[in-house]
Amino acid sequence: MKRKLIVDLEPVGRRGEANEDTSLLDVAQSVGVEMASVCGGEGWCGKCRVRLISGILSPLTEDEKNAISRDDIQSGYRLACQSKPLSDVKIDIPPETLTTTQRLQLEGVGSDPYRDGFDPIVKSIDLQLNAPHLEDLESDLTRVCNGINSSGATTLHADLPVLRNLSHQLRSQAWSLRLAVFQDEIIGVFPSGSLLVGLAVDIGTTKMAAYLVNLENGETLAKGGLTNPQVVYGEDVVSRIAFANQSEENRKILQYKLVERLNELTAYLCGQAGVKQDQIVEVSVVGNTAIHHLFLGLPVRQLGEAPYIAAVSNSVHVRASDVGVFASPGAYIYMPPNIAGFVGADHVSMLLASGILAKQKAVVALDIGTNTEISLYVPTGAGSGRLLSCSCASGPAFEGAHIHDGMRAMPGAIEKVQIHEGAIRIHTIGDALPVGLCGSGILDAVAEMRRVGFLDSAGRIKKDIPGMRPTKNGGEFVLVPAGKTGHGRDVIVNRKDVNEIQLAKGAIRAGIEVLLTLTGISYEDIDEFIIAGAFGTYLDVENAVRIGMFPSISLNRFKQVGNAAGMGARLLLLSQKEREKAEQIARQVEYIELTTHLNFTNVYVDALNF
Amino acid sequence: MKRKLIVDLEPVGRRGEANEDTSLLDVAQSVGVEMASVCGGEGWCGKCRVRLISGILSPLTEDEKNAISRDDIQSGYRLACQSKPLSDVKIDIPPETLTTTQRLQLEGVGSDPYRDGFDPIVKSIDLQLNAPHLEDLESDLTRVCNGINSSGATTLHADLPVLRNLSHQLRSQAWSLRLAVFQDEIIGVFPSGSLLVGLAVDIGTTKMAAYLVNLENGETLAKGGLTNPQVVYGEDVVSRIAFANQSEENRKILQYKLVERLNELTAYLCGQAGVKQDQIVEVSVVGNTAIHHLFLGLPVRQLGEAPYIAAVSNSVHVRASDVGVFASPGAYIYMPPNIAGFVGADHVSMLLASGILAKQKAVVALDIGTNTEISLYVPTGAGSGRLLSCSCASGPAFEGAHIHDGMRAMPGAIEKVQIHEGAIRIHTIGDALPVGLCGSGILDAVAEMRRVGFLDSAGRIKKDIPGMRPTKNGGEFVLVPAGKTGHGRDVIVNRKDVNEIQLAKGAIRAGIEVLLTLTGISYEDIDEFIIAGAFGTYLDVENAVRIGMFPSISLNRFKQVGNAAGMGARLLLLSQKEREKAEQIARQVEYIELTTHLNFTNVYVDALNF
Repeated sequence: MKRKLIVDLEPVGRRGEANEDTSLLDVAQSVGVEMASVCGGEGWCGKCRVRLISGILSPLTEDEKNAISRDDIQSGYRLACQSKPLSDVKIDIPPETLTTTQRLQLEGVGSDPYRDGFDPIVKSIDLQLNAPHLEDLESDLTRVCNGINSSGATTLHADLPVLRNLSHQLRSQAWSLRLAVFQDEIIGVFPSGSLLVGLAVDIGTTKMAAYLVNLENGETLAKGGLTNPQVVYGEDVVSRIAFANQSEENRKILQYKLVERLNELTAYLCGQAGVKQDQIVEVSVVGNTAIHHLFLGLPVRQLGEAPYIAAVSNSVHVRASDVGVFASPGAYIYMPPNIAGFVGADHVSMLLASGILAKQKAVVALDIGTNTEISLYVPTGAGSGRLLSCSCASGPAFEGAHIHDGMRAMPGAIEKVQIHEGAIRIHTIGDALPVGLCGSGILDAVAEMRRVGFLDSAGRIKKDIPGMRPTKNGGEFVLVPAGKTGHGRDVIVNRKDVNEIQLAKGAIRAGIEVLLTLTGISYEDIDEFIIAGAFGTYLDVENAVRIGMFPSISLNRFKQVGNAAGMGARLLLLSQKEREKAEQIARQVEYIELTTHLNFTNVYVDALNF
Repeated sequence: MKRKLIVDLEPVGRRGEANEDTSLLDVAQSVGVEMASVCGGEGWCGKCRVRLISGILSPLTEDEKNAISRDDIQSGYRLACQSKPLSDVKIDIPPETLTTTQRLQLEGVGSDPYRDGFDPIVKSIDLQLNAPHLEDLESDLTRVCNGINSSGATTLHADLPVLRNLSHQLRSQAWSLRLAVFQDEIIGVFPSGSLLVGLAVDIGTTKMAAYLVNLENGETLAKGGLTNPQVVYGEDVVSRIAFANQSEENRKILQYKLVERLNELTAYLCGQAGVKQDQIVEVSVVGNTAIHHLFLGLPVRQLGEAPYIAAVSNSVHVRASDVGVFASPGAYIYMPPNIAGFVGADHVSMLLASGILAKQKAVVALDIGTNTEISLYVPTGAGSGRLLSCSCASGPAFEGAHIHDGMRAMPGAIEKVQIHEGAIRIHTIGDALPVGLCGSGILDAVAEMRRVGFLDSAGRIKKDIPGMRPTKNGGEFVLVPAGKTGHGRDVIVNRKDVNEIQLAKGAIRAGIEVLLTLTGISYEDIDEFIIAGAFGTYLDVENAVRIGMFPSISLNRFKQVGNAAGMGARLLLLSQKEREKAEQIARQVEYIELTTHLNFTNVYVDALNF
């Protein structure tokens, strides 16, 4: 008998199985991933387009040749209903084909994105100028600068993108215009009354969120999120760095895909807000160090090898056009500083949004992901304090990866589990029939199994419990039997899944413990425990404490703040002071490299048990 | 399918290919042979005359019948833009049509390109850094900046072009490197010991000159010149602006051709000097305002219509890559200020090289071309003075255009004429058989004809003189009969030619007179009279005084300085002080718009006569 072929479906992160008679559409449906399909798999609607990333598929059919352009065929596009795997394959499902969407955490807690007075980075200046004539021959730029100076500004200059538009704009707008000015540079010329907007972007390893901000009053005009399209080239940043290192072309693909998707998202947001893309005069982007480098087109080889060195850790301010981001031709992108190879600008942005340097108490702030960044602030009096940050390799388990029935947070994912008097209660995203477990669901499942005694302190699944099935590898526990799932197969938690959660929670706890040790305080001294990010929003804090991921402090000290990095990105558009604070955070932070910390291994091993 | 037709171009010895839709002008351009073309291939300027030696061409067009005399048609003359090969053909390109071998004036007078202490714009800093390790995790840029700071420099930053190379360079060069630093920006990273060079460029309407400069000692490493490739799209800037205004694509062609040719010239110079193009860390470019705008990709529509407004008159400092100029990825281009629509950065550069602001005496400085820029400096004591500049439309006669047998300064052009006791003595460039007159030749011819009484004071050719032939339009004087010329046709000077010279010299003299009037000095007060540019190098000053183009002052006060703009461009690479002086010149200058000056027309009419 032939072995089953493995089908990895990206960007959703689901794995299915196939034989040579199973179409990709069948595989997707079997694991609860829904694709657009009008014709029901007959091959004529062309809606179930997917792209082959690796592996071998059955030959192109006539229907596919009719439905897909020659260029797209060259790029690897196929119809999921027509193509069958001939080997293990990896498939990219583009957004237009995917009908189930990943849950995104766009908002942070608290509604006001600015705090310290409204002082947007880019100012607008309205001018009404006199037209030149033979006795008034100033150049166009000089005329504009003198017009501003009469309003009391200092010497200004402009670069080519603005100079190339200025003369036409002045004349077509009858010498009446609105300027966008950044510091001493004119970065945009617009018709009078044009609204100037900013774009704030938080790029995560798996998701990206973007916000259009009114630079006149700080309001968020539109917001939205999409999957990071780099996911198909590697689930975590380490594998993407490896992909990028294979060739210069690969590195460029990673950049291009990211920028292209951001431009699509921005175009959509502009449509929502009723503004043109060239009204965007400033962009702030936050992301972890690898994403930061890939986005800017910086090399990542040195980030992927010990000692994991960033090309640049200072904030960068570069032309949007140099990165390929669509905005006003003179617009810049600001990215706040990186702290280290694995503590990036997104963590700085999150710390900024948390206002951590202004706290009068000991605060832990963390953002859980494949890498979890942890910071600890301990005030030392007189408005100052120590700020320590580290990164721990918590792995992708909380993104649903490396878990037998793991999946990303989208409809059909079990996100809550309770075991009550032997009965299992679950809640799925979208109240759909369950097809797998997302991060908070697997954390709940493990915590509940431990609470009711199905797991011992080392994480072994006990025998002789209802739902337990022995296997070669330590047994598996049936959480939802096949009859009650969306795809007709059991949803289980096995010994390996429990181990993955142990490794993840142990790494996070060990990171916290090392920071506490270095500052000489104990966990009871933590007055506030800030949990940021999408997974952090949905996780059950009590269960996280129960399995030992977080220290056992009063539950009311925990604060789940949602997408604080995205909120920080907006702050970076709205006030020069906030940018200075971000720089201050990066300067002040003491980065702790856990792998060189003497006690880390001991602490880690201790933290693995329940 | 038809085979390609072969087109042999003589005397240059180039072979091109054509089909039946390709004009001879297209073929010539496709193989890099440049022909004069004022009208851009529309058939009316008659400049692209060629002669069929063998083969078959498409039938004569009406335009050709109008542009070419019956005799010349009999001799096989055609317009290259109008004729298409119908078989393999061999074509003769006469010297007056061929623009490739034009004489270029590269050097200014005086050998030392810098004066006020050597202080190059871009500094080199050598560093030997320690490699990072797990307890020394600074980012690559921070490591470099700290390495510099320990040498006493201030805060530095770097933009994407440098950041994209930095990490690899550091590691491949074992952490030893040479930096190129401009102000507070790292603009290049090189292996230790690399020579940093600058590129100085003077782009004229018809010619361009470039110089590679050693930034460590100020020496010129290589220099060279080529025809401005925009010539084929229009001989003067007015017709090029008209061409650019026809479509955005046309404007881009003018920019692209110019930058492409500069890159070729630079590559050649780098080969001569044994350096790589990416060792060029700073570029200075001077040109008139229209060339400046076309080079930078700025709009020229407003330059081509009254009141002739520049988009920008301040100096500009832009990335070389934003203009398409090949250099180090982080290199910038500096262009000094423009004074007005028709007094450009090249005139500022010429004034800089002349050291005009430091003069203790009244100085006239001019650069003769299609537009002649004239400046007058009058000291007012205590190291200060007034500097007035104007531009006059002297027309293209001194470039050989609009003259019956006019041609550019290349082999076969008559450059000197003497009439002695009825005998005519000529000298041609390259001692070739004469085929036409270049600017200095026609000026000499007219001055001599006036001196010996062949012309009256109004410029009429007298009757009854040897060599005089009556025509409908005021007669023509045979300077060289057909039997002694290179192309077997007479070289003549006709009444219209004399008029062209009158218009040109009258405009220049009127400009000088207006400036003198405005400063209240008379021409006897002019202590120094500086004549810059290629034509200015070769013209006979005595003859120029004789025809009244220049005022009648002692001949030893005239100074023919050659390509002073090109020397100024080099100064702009070698010292920050020189850049400040250029800015000072532009700030201090009083631009005089002649067309609005009340007396200009009277003065001009007076100046027309001999």
